[in-house]
Amino acid sequence: MVTSTIGRRIRLGLIGGGPGSIIGETHRIAARLDGQYDIVAAALSSNPERARQAALDLGIGAERAYASWQQMLEAEAARPDRIDAVAVMTPNDSHHPICMLALDRGFHVICDKPLANDLAQAREIAARVKTTNAEFCVTYCYTGFPMVRQARDMIRAGELGEIRQVHLQYVQSYLAGHDLPAGWRTEGRAGSSLVLMDIGTHAFHLGAFVTGLDVTRLCADVGSAIPGRPVDDYVSALLRYENGARGSLWVTNAAAGSEHGLSFRIHGDKGGLEWHQEEPNRLIHRRQDAFEEIITRRLGPATSEGAQRSTRIAIGHPEGYLEAFANLYTEFAQRVATRIAGTPGDDQPTRFPSVSDGVKGLAFVAASVKSMATGGWQDVERM
Amino acid sequence: MVTSTIGRRIRLGLIGGGPGSIIGETHRIAARLDGQYDIVAAALSSNPERARQAALDLGIGAERAYASWQQMLEAEAARPDRIDAVAVMTPNDSHHPICMLALDRGFHVICDKPLANDLAQAREIAARVKTTNAEFCVTYCYTGFPMVRQARDMIRAGELGEIRQVHLQYVQSYLAGHDLPAGWRTEGRAGSSLVLMDIGTHAFHLGAFVTGLDVTRLCADVGSAIPGRPVDDYVSALLRYENGARGSLWVTNAAAGSEHGLSFRIHGDKGGLEWHQEEPNRLIHRRQDAFEEIITRRLGPATSEGAQRSTRIAIGHPEGYLEAFANLYTEFAQRVATRIAGTPGDDQPTRFPSVSDGVKGLAFVAASVKSMATGGWQDVERM
Amino acid sequence: MVTSTIGRRIRLGLIGGGPGSIIGETHRIAARLDGQYDIVAAALSSNPERARQAALDLGIGAERAYASWQQMLEAEAARPDRIDAVAVMTPNDSHHPICMLALDRGFHVICDKPLANDLAQAREIAARVKTTNAEFCVTYCYTGFPMVRQARDMIRAGELGEIRQVHLQYVQSYLAGHDLPAGWRTEGRAGSSLVLMDIGTHAFHLGAFVTGLDVTRLCADVGSAIPGRPVDDYVSALLRYENGARGSLWVTNAAAGSEHGLSFRIHGDKGGLEWHQEEPNRLIHRRQDAFEEIITRRLGPATSEGAQRSTRIAIGHPEGYLEAFANLYTEFAQRVATRIAGTPGDDQPTRFPSVSDGVKGLAFVAASVKSMATGGWQDVERM
Amino acid sequence: MVTSTIGRRIRLGLIGGGPGSIIGETHRIAARLDGQYDIVAAALSSNPERARQAALDLGIGAERAYASWQQMLEAEAARPDRIDAVAVMTPNDSHHPICMLALDRGFHVICDKPLANDLAQAREIAARVKTTNAEFCVTYCYTGFPMVRQARDMIRAGELGEIRQVHLQYVQSYLAGHDLPAGWRTEGRAGSSLVLMDIGTHAFHLGAFVTGLDVTRLCADVGSAIPGRPVDDYVSALLRYENGARGSLWVTNAAAGSEHGLSFRIHGDKGGLEWHQEEPNRLIHRRQDAFEEIITRRLGPATSEGAQRSTRIAIGHPEGYLEAFANLYTEFAQRVATRIAGTPGDDQPTRFPSVSDGVKGLAFVAASVKSMATGGWQDVERM
Repeated sequence: MVTSTIGRRIRLGLIGGGPGSIIGETHRIAARLDGQYDIVAAALSSNPERARQAALDLGIGAERAYASWQQMLEAEAARPDRIDAVAVMTPNDSHHPICMLALDRGFHVICDKPLANDLAQAREIAARVKTTNAEFCVTYCYTGFPMVRQARDMIRAGELGEIRQVHLQYVQSYLAGHDLPAGWRTEGRAGSSLVLMDIGTHAFHLGAFVTGLDVTRLCADVGSAIPGRPVDDYVSALLRYENGARGSLWVTNAAAGSEHGLSFRIHGDKGGLEWHQEEPNRLIHRRQDAFEEIITRRLGPATSEGAQRSTRIAIGHPEGYLEAFANLYTEFAQRVATRIAGTPGDDQPTRFPSVSDGVKGLAFVAASVKSMATGGWQDVERM
Repeated sequence: MVTSTIGRRIRLGLIGGGPGSIIGETHRIAARLDGQYDIVAAALSSNPERARQAALDLGIGAERAYASWQQMLEAEAARPDRIDAVAVMTPNDSHHPICMLALDRGFHVICDKPLANDLAQAREIAARVKTTNAEFCVTYCYTGFPMVRQARDMIRAGELGEIRQVHLQYVQSYLAGHDLPAGWRTEGRAGSSLVLMDIGTHAFHLGAFVTGLDVTRLCADVGSAIPGRPVDDYVSALLRYENGARGSLWVTNAAAGSEHGLSFRIHGDKGGLEWHQEEPNRLIHRRQDAFEEIITRRLGPATSEGAQRSTRIAIGHPEGYLEAFANLYTEFAQRVATRIAGTPGDDQPTRFPSVSDGVKGLAFVAASVKSMATGGWQDVERM
Repeated sequence: MVTSTIGRRIRLGLIGGGPGSIIGETHRIAARLDGQYDIVAAALSSNPERARQAALDLGIGAERAYASWQQMLEAEAARPDRIDAVAVMTPNDSHHPICMLALDRGFHVICDKPLANDLAQAREIAARVKTTNAEFCVTYCYTGFPMVRQARDMIRAGELGEIRQVHLQYVQSYLAGHDLPAGWRTEGRAGSSLVLMDIGTHAFHLGAFVTGLDVTRLCADVGSAIPGRPVDDYVSALLRYENGARGSLWVTNAAAGSEHGLSFRIHGDKGGLEWHQEEPNRLIHRRQDAFEEIITRRLGPATSEGAQRSTRIAIGHPEGYLEAFANLYTEFAQRVATRIAGTPGDDQPTRFPSVSDGVKGLAFVAASVKSMATGGWQDVERM
Repeated sequence: MVTSTIGRRIRLGLIGGGPGSIIGETHRIAARLDGQYDIVAAALSSNPERARQAALDLGIGAERAYASWQQMLEAEAARPDRIDAVAVMTPNDSHHPICMLALDRGFHVICDKPLANDLAQAREIAARVKTTNAEFCVTYCYTGFPMVRQARDMIRAGELGEIRQVHLQYVQSYLAGHDLPAGWRTEGRAGSSLVLMDIGTHAFHLGAFVTGLDVTRLCADVGSAIPGRPVDDYVSALLRYENGARGSLWVTNAAAGSEHGLSFRIHGDKGGLEWHQEEPNRLIHRRQDAFEEIITRRLGPATSEGAQRSTRIAIGHPEGYLEAFANLYTEFAQRVATRIAGTPGDDQPTRFPSVSDGVKGLAFVAASVKSMATGGWQDVERM
């Protein structure tokens, strides 16, 4: 508990995620779950009245129920009991100004993905993180699942041998109907390609997180599976990783009847791993010289350190999305507490995705769009 | 949020669940998850020093970091900002004295299962709940899963027709090794039959919760699967429900290699439902005149009201054990807030298990033990 | 191939299984699949005209398209090119007279299960097999699956340690409707208890085959899940095996919406095995000290000799019920060829179920019925 | 049965598939399973001695145990009881000469896939089929599974709406080891690209069979996942179907630890279907406005005519690869019998894959290889 380190919880301010927002409640549960944060300030909506009322309903004191994020960042910067960090869960096109100001005012930042609306903005934020020396987490939340970390740890330990093939999927249905739902995602505020920005970056990052490898080139088929609509709802891509491994990716939010559909299947010289977010507590381990095994969060030496650190309850009790999300929040809190305490950090590897992971996501989007325009392979730009 | 109803969160005091206790952290996460409680007091251990330090580590104020549950109940009873409720997560044999005093001092109570160490104790607690008019929840936590509630709602709505067959399983492995682990569960503090008390009551209650039916007679094979050990680790029983339905139950904590293994499979005239706690977000619906369907927490009219009320996040994001546990806590908080506000409760059905469910669990244990002694069928005593 | 041993195929005569019979075509496919038999004679129906026409439609010569089984057994006994064996797939109540005459006329016999209509008949057949020194197979066909043999081989090799718990299920739906279908199974020709005779014996034998253990005592709940019907459609039983292992069994053909539902789950000191007939090519191996593994028919040292011998095609190609059934036929053909050749048999263990397995099935039925009548535990009679 | 139509079985001659050949025994089982063929002639090996002995071991008469396929085709052409059809299961590079001569001598032909070693050869065979008016089946055997036909029938009936997305996989491991196994597949006799010819054509045809749509353009990444080897073991491709639907394909035989891995997932406007060859009796039906359903071979109106016609045994009994393969053989036998009888064929749609399906497979191989060479999209040539 961070209370053992600094004698109090991390003070957190929220930006966005007001009434009716699913992602807002998700961030708040993630902050509450392990008792590492006190949510003491909020600017929950772009509508000043709704922003203030929503904060009061959450139990936030009237003084810190702010009407706007600008007001919150300036006011908090001046308080002696100022917040330590802000969590940003607004539409994509506002991430850049909010993060820039929050960093300038000296706050640590948790920002929802994608990091920004385009690659240039993302690089600006990354540069500002460097100059302000802040902690910064991009909530690629699926990296928080224990079995995703187990996969990463196994690959780092060489249990699959050299990685040879990567296959990523994210197959949803929320745009499968012919009529587009209203909302900022379909109103041009989501960046250059809806499906790439909204869920493509998740799948792309998941592959990089688990393998520890970056994609260097790709050839993408981006467009709409449902004819005639003005937004992208489909991408399939051929990938080449930095070590020469081949990969592919199928991401869509227009596959009628699907639910979540995020998965990876990765093969190395010795075997393969497959994971599906819809059954997150099982990791399928195919072995070239032995039968398939089903890795679970069972405690014991066979479960990796990263998986054990990310698990709260075992003996077959399932954990889910909220626990995975909370893992990022809790790891971020521990890092911030170390910074507050001024002690050297522990030597444990950081798990939560960084600002550079956010930049890479936007580079993937840019390369995919360019590949579609040219009809061939494109390099993915580096940091 | 209860803050909208009474302007503050429910004030909760914890009894038991100190350092190293899995069930303790589970209860605390359940209390924190929806932001309905402030944990302001605690007596976390039977060791006074450890009790106080553990409470401080949790961020509880020094004044309310109590050395014992007796001290906490008396001191809190005298405070103007006294706790509204206590949560009891101590070994079984202390549930009775703690609950009796807590009720006498006017607190609402959340108590871990089994309710008490025997049927007589359980009936005394139930009687005291009646005279004190307190809210009381027994944490048969598996009833909190959305798909368990979906099953219950479907059966109540007649979607399976008249219930004809019930099959319950809870197949674990934590006592599969020949050497019994140390701890109160194997040291005679767990009541007349370890396996029946520890997990048998969970499976038994799950069947009753989902079908809405009580077992009236049973014939049980209770004992140890591992020869020569002094505790029960196995029960298999033939069941007869109040409507004439036949049932069976297989519960053990000595099935080597198993993980959690709680499941039900229920058939009525029109079809059947099957659910496994290890994959809790899927409910298998077998239909006599149509193909099997897989019911999920997908929002929409096909998901029952009970399932939708118990779900925080959808579109295929998995939820787990902690969310199920938190559902009981949150429903309890809403009920307590209604009591504090003095307003008439909403007309929604209570979902969290009651003290009478706790009594029925002990009646099941008693009937099973008696059946094993006599080698034949026994009636299950009523409230 | 038996052609390599005796220069020709085994000559087989069929009794029963005429037009519209599913089990008849199943036996014929089983006989054809490996090319070990020539089906040269048949008495396919109790109606003489239908019997002859059906045989002609199968391509059997007119001379050996018999009008009755009595005619076939007498005529074939007199031919120089007489059949080697008969396959019996008539209703239960005719197994006894057919088998007795076939044995008396010197034929080897494949008989569908259950062996006879009651335990006394079964014992008479077994005695006659002994005096005639015939080969005799009872088609408990589910023992032919490679993964069932894998399980048996693993248990014999001690891979689970001492067997402690056995759980058997066979949960079907073909009598789930309120109106009983017409046919001999529901017309009193199926013996003392429909569900026990029809599918209960399958589940019971499967447990014995896989564990190598007999049940010595049981306590059964036998009756009808659907109220008011004159036949049994439900049995649940508590079992005690000869080594002290505990077991249970749930068998019904009245669970609305179910399909096949035959499965076993067995636990020993070191781990457990679970198999479902509906996904027969996977054997779940739970291990106390390692992750669960999924055993398949993959060739290689990890697959048992019994599984490899029972598999025709690998690299993940699924095999099914007909291949399992054919395994019994092919093993029987090999045994008969050895007898014809007069050479000593190979030293490989027989796999196909014997007449004594058939007797044990009827002993299980008798004990279950008696247990239901007395309301308590009963011994299962031995051979 | 064809015996009812023409009074005898179809007379079949085998070419290839001698001792040790898995595909040879597969074809023979497929021919035997339904009793529609008499295997009366064979040229089983390119080694004359082995060819003759192997035929004798199968029980084929000495006169028709041929030393070579040329000898068999010429000798059989001259017999009054000549074979009706030949089945070709030799290495790819001999398909063309064998098929051409067999057609010229007036036989109907069953040929293993791929049809030929390149597109030009394939087109020659197709032209000869036309001029000789023969029946011709290419054994894309996976189209024989009942649930594959169910999928095809549902899509033809419009149950998914317009098809929008197709995803095909065939992920095996038999070339995952660094040392290539010996054999014709890796010795240059398998055509221009091992993985495309060997399993790529299966996956490609499966997509076309189920959707009823042809691929018009593609962009492929073809090569070796294992560095430095001289054969292709990996292909991933972006596909565009004739109706505008987008698709993708991942096929490899070098994914360590995999077993079979053939699957399709197809989405239309109203829902999607997913099928895996390793669990072939389940077809997952995702529906946009209802819960997922699991379609099985259950008899009744909900199972399509094509599925019911392709099923031998139901009530949950699994069928597998050999039954699927046998479906092609049996349908071919029925067609040949109709030709022999000289009666007009029934009006039922042909199910077995035709010579034109074989040509399309080679066109897919050619386009993929060309795409890899050019680094961009290529048209797939039409018949």
